[in-house]
Amino acid sequence: MRTSIATVCLSGTLDEKLIAASTAGFDGVEIFEPDLIASPRSPEEIRDRAGELGLTLDLYQPFRDFEGVGPELLEQNLRRAAAKFALMNRLGIGTMLLCSNVATARSGDEQLSAAQLRQLGDVADRFGVRVAYEALAWGRFVDSYEAAARIVRLADHPRLGLCLDSFHILSRGHNPEAIETIPAEKIFFVQMADAPLLSLDVLSWSRHHRLFPGEGGFDLGTFMAHLVRTGYDGPVSLEIFNDTFRQADPLATAIDARRSLRWLEHETAAALGAPAGGRAARMSTAGLPEVDPPADVNYVELRTDEVPELRRLLTQLGFRPHGEHRTKPVELWTHGAARVVLGAPDSGRPQPTVAGIGLSVGDPSRALRRARELFAPEVPRAEGEGDEPLVGVSAPDGSEVFFGAGRGAQPMWVSEFGTPDGDDAGMIERVDHLNLAQPWQHFDAAVLFFHSVLDLRTEASVEVAAPVGLVRSQVLRSRNDVLRIALNLVPSGAGEDAILPQHIAFATADVLELARAARARGFRPLDIPSNYYDDIEARYQIDPALLHDLRELNVMYDRDDAGEFLHFYTHPIGTVFLEVVERRGAYAGYGALNAPVRLAAQYQHRRAGEGVLT
Amino acid sequence: MRTSIATVCLSGTLDEKLIAASTAGFDGVEIFEPDLIASPRSPEEIRDRAGELGLTLDLYQPFRDFEGVGPELLEQNLRRAAAKFALMNRLGIGTMLLCSNVATARSGDEQLSAAQLRQLGDVADRFGVRVAYEALAWGRFVDSYEAAARIVRLADHPRLGLCLDSFHILSRGHNPEAIETIPAEKIFFVQMADAPLLSLDVLSWSRHHRLFPGEGGFDLGTFMAHLVRTGYDGPVSLEIFNDTFRQADPLATAIDARRSLRWLEHETAAALGAPAGGRAARMSTAGLPEVDPPADVNYVELRTDEVPELRRLLTQLGFRPHGEHRTKPVELWTHGAARVVLGAPDSGRPQPTVAGIGLSVGDPSRALRRARELFAPEVPRAEGEGDEPLVGVSAPDGSEVFFGAGRGAQPMWVSEFGTPDGDDAGMIERVDHLNLAQPWQHFDAAVLFFHSVLDLRTEASVEVAAPVGLVRSQVLRSRNDVLRIALNLVPSGAGEDAILPQHIAFATADVLELARAARARGFRPLDIPSNYYDDIEARYQIDPALLHDLRELNVMYDRDDAGEFLHFYTHPIGTVFLEVVERRGAYAGYGALNAPVRLAAQYQHRRAGEGVLT
Repeated sequence: MRTSIATVCLSGTLDEKLIAASTAGFDGVEIFEPDLIASPRSPEEIRDRAGELGLTLDLYQPFRDFEGVGPELLEQNLRRAAAKFALMNRLGIGTMLLCSNVATARSGDEQLSAAQLRQLGDVADRFGVRVAYEALAWGRFVDSYEAAARIVRLADHPRLGLCLDSFHILSRGHNPEAIETIPAEKIFFVQMADAPLLSLDVLSWSRHHRLFPGEGGFDLGTFMAHLVRTGYDGPVSLEIFNDTFRQADPLATAIDARRSLRWLEHETAAALGAPAGGRAARMSTAGLPEVDPPADVNYVELRTDEVPELRRLLTQLGFRPHGEHRTKPVELWTHGAARVVLGAPDSGRPQPTVAGIGLSVGDPSRALRRARELFAPEVPRAEGEGDEPLVGVSAPDGSEVFFGAGRGAQPMWVSEFGTPDGDDAGMIERVDHLNLAQPWQHFDAAVLFFHSVLDLRTEASVEVAAPVGLVRSQVLRSRNDVLRIALNLVPSGAGEDAILPQHIAFATADVLELARAARARGFRPLDIPSNYYDDIEARYQIDPALLHDLRELNVMYDRDDAGEFLHFYTHPIGTVFLEVVERRGAYAGYGALNAPVRLAAQYQHRRAGEGVLT
Repeated sequence: MRTSIATVCLSGTLDEKLIAASTAGFDGVEIFEPDLIASPRSPEEIRDRAGELGLTLDLYQPFRDFEGVGPELLEQNLRRAAAKFALMNRLGIGTMLLCSNVATARSGDEQLSAAQLRQLGDVADRFGVRVAYEALAWGRFVDSYEAAARIVRLADHPRLGLCLDSFHILSRGHNPEAIETIPAEKIFFVQMADAPLLSLDVLSWSRHHRLFPGEGGFDLGTFMAHLVRTGYDGPVSLEIFNDTFRQADPLATAIDARRSLRWLEHETAAALGAPAGGRAARMSTAGLPEVDPPADVNYVELRTDEVPELRRLLTQLGFRPHGEHRTKPVELWTHGAARVVLGAPDSGRPQPTVAGIGLSVGDPSRALRRARELFAPEVPRAEGEGDEPLVGVSAPDGSEVFFGAGRGAQPMWVSEFGTPDGDDAGMIERVDHLNLAQPWQHFDAAVLFFHSVLDLRTEASVEVAAPVGLVRSQVLRSRNDVLRIALNLVPSGAGEDAILPQHIAFATADVLELARAARARGFRPLDIPSNYYDDIEARYQIDPALLHDLRELNVMYDRDDAGEFLHFYTHPIGTVFLEVVERRGAYAGYGALNAPVRLAAQYQHRRAGEGVLT
């Protein structure tokens, strides 16, 4: 599949955009006209620069408000087009995007528009270029790809074809099936965009909230399958208007974009059915290596400046220390099958507190191959003599995911940390879920990373009110529910106070008992206000003895049709805190109703400047 | 007018919210339930705290999903309500907000809902409290205030009345006129919210984009006039869900909120017609002192670390120096009627680069009185012996607005700077407009400040693409067009690079001549790419000689039906740059199409790390 990206997707100057697209391995780019106009380089220099960077210039865009006009304006528009065709010749670009008329069309007569487009085709012919006509979702008369296809058929000019943009088609709820009736040679260009499912006027939705494939709610695999069945073999491009991408590092965005197209290729292959291909397929759409869901969360690695405080906290929760790694400055703590690797932050690089996640998978090298194909940067583990070989990749926020073969039983690498100290109380069973707060620049990319690399399913996102702003939370889970990750989007503008801590939740079969045992070891949980317990009393018919215990132990409570959820939190230690949860029945949530109370309690704690774990 | 504000409008803990509301001079607050639940203070302590702070607790909110349900759920709901009424007794709150049922209503039968509400009224009676029923715009069956009013009438219970929320009424396009048919004693509470005019699903619009009155697009003066005519005399409250306010300093938000209600009172008086009052009016709605638009922009004060570079730049543009102020470390530069006061930043306080604006007004003390009534903090000018007395106030970003009486001719205070040096070339006529980039926290507040304090009209806002993100731009102008301010919202997340400079635009009758004269003095304008001139050539039928001059002198061009606009920019000097504009015909815009090119050129300039003004 030939890949392309519109320069409007990336931040910075045109030069910076070209470098980012090239570095991320795109085959080509679309030149977004305002980027050209604002560039101090001449068209010839831009052409040469793209050539040096190994990029083809696939499309010049957009040309607007051409067809359906009166004769005088048509004359002006043809003159305007000729000037742009001459410019395309200087750039060496063969195809121009023409958007259906939004502002100046007086007539919706398709015969008239076709005749005018035929004239445009004649002018294009003089310059040896082609025009790809695209129906904008908010076009004055032409707002569906089927209408655009009819007009192109009527115009019947070899220099005139279509541009298909998944956003304009799917945002209107149009069925993409009829794409298959379009002759491949009339599809000049394809732009793929995902988007969250919003009810917003389609223009604002399009201009601000598009996403790369795999980050939103559109079924793009099916869309692509229709396209492939036409025999189309041109570039598949990304034209994503997104307020965040406009502000983020262009290289990080470009890699995210490239990953989205690799994932889309895989989804397309799946939608076409195995063997990939089908009737007229000429586009190659290779699937990704399929991976089984992880058998368990092997370990979680925390990097923090507060190692002594975390040691104390883990001890209070019943973890036991295994001592330091024999060659590296990290130590292991275990409780049941939950393992925490603890160390100070690596100097010299930014590192999130949850710095690593180890997963037990059936075939680590296959998992790595999939990740590599999805442009995940590989991080070889620094291995000492006799260490278990582990393979890993880094996520958008710089944290690492390692794949190991250990399954259920104690993994080999545990012995690298020596012998455990004391008995395993065994009350904690495993890691229940991870809550990874993400800076705003990495949120959408993190969704795509975990969704595609680890094949996790996304749930609907929710918003939680914190004292410093709204926090958007997106849960992803493996098919077998072993790996559950909540990605939290930190409000962008709230400054220091808004750095939400990350957290690990451990599962237990008896959270009240564990809370009691921890308290006997000096543990002090996060204080939950008494008003909270008054409220759940009013909300639920709750057993008074249970309510008493919850209140006494600062354990929170939630209930739905499937079951109950009991959980407590530690105080934040620097940028991390821990949670212990008990799921009763088939409760599958995370106590979202309790999150604002927890966030307020943490904020209160920070504000009060209390000593931690006194 | 009795004023109140919902705690949900403000960021921080409940304590911090109460302090902010009290400091800003609100009479009371609505307690938003999640704020109470998350507070470590007991209900009694909260009641006492509010009392100490001089705040009444006007409303407990929200209670949800009560009416239109089956008998079993009704039983539960009555029990749930009784628990909240008991809590209200502890808080000393007399009124509870009940939202129309969104989730659990099975029936839209108004008789049934009225009967159930009557039962609720009986329970409320036991606790001596009242219930204010509000139709949510997205209620399952009840989504208009007229339906809610019918049900309240049917229920006919002294403990049951209405809450009117301008957002729920105006966002649906409902006519507020029928408010006048509601008996005042049945209006238990009023919440006023403004909002930008968006086409967004009403739930998202409501939850994220509400604004304080005067910051959005609703006609709230008319709404209030209907209300006043009922004889309603209760609190007018603000319940604003806004993503920005949730993150901003609560005291700044509270002052902004208080200002919005004072402005609303004024608008209400105007809508009622003079003399304010009318038939049944019991609520006092005092107008503000009316002010004439400014006769001219008397001066603009720049505070910058780059004083020498700005001196050079002003000289190149034909300004002449008057020397230092006789007692203060600032100097005056003039050109025609344009005056720039230049100095280094005051130490010890954050200060925007455009640190002050002086306006000539007919009656400075009246202008100051209006500003004071709108809670603008007064900034007395430090006056030396014999200095002209000027009075001023500070805007949300800390810049200052001074009112002086000088009209047209040279103001008295100019002599405080000694005698000018050299001739006045006289090519610059005046300040054309100011472009005040605002940090995200202050944008909406700045709109309200200039709109209300200076009585400026708002134009529709536009969005401009910059290399570091989208910039929202909102123009405000005085009725006589003498004062024109563009407020630019800097993207919140883009870090250092996103600090947009502020700028002053000066008006001239011949921008090309001025550009030539400046060049002869060594001026180097902001470089505009050649591609830009190719584009305007393709876009407009432009005279080749003019195009040549524009290109040669780096002057930009725009045209609309009213006229033409020619303008050039200086390089940014630190956080400020200057612009010179020529308006031909009745052109009234600002060259918005050119803004992305200018932003990119400035970004390019910064990126290239060029020496400035070589």
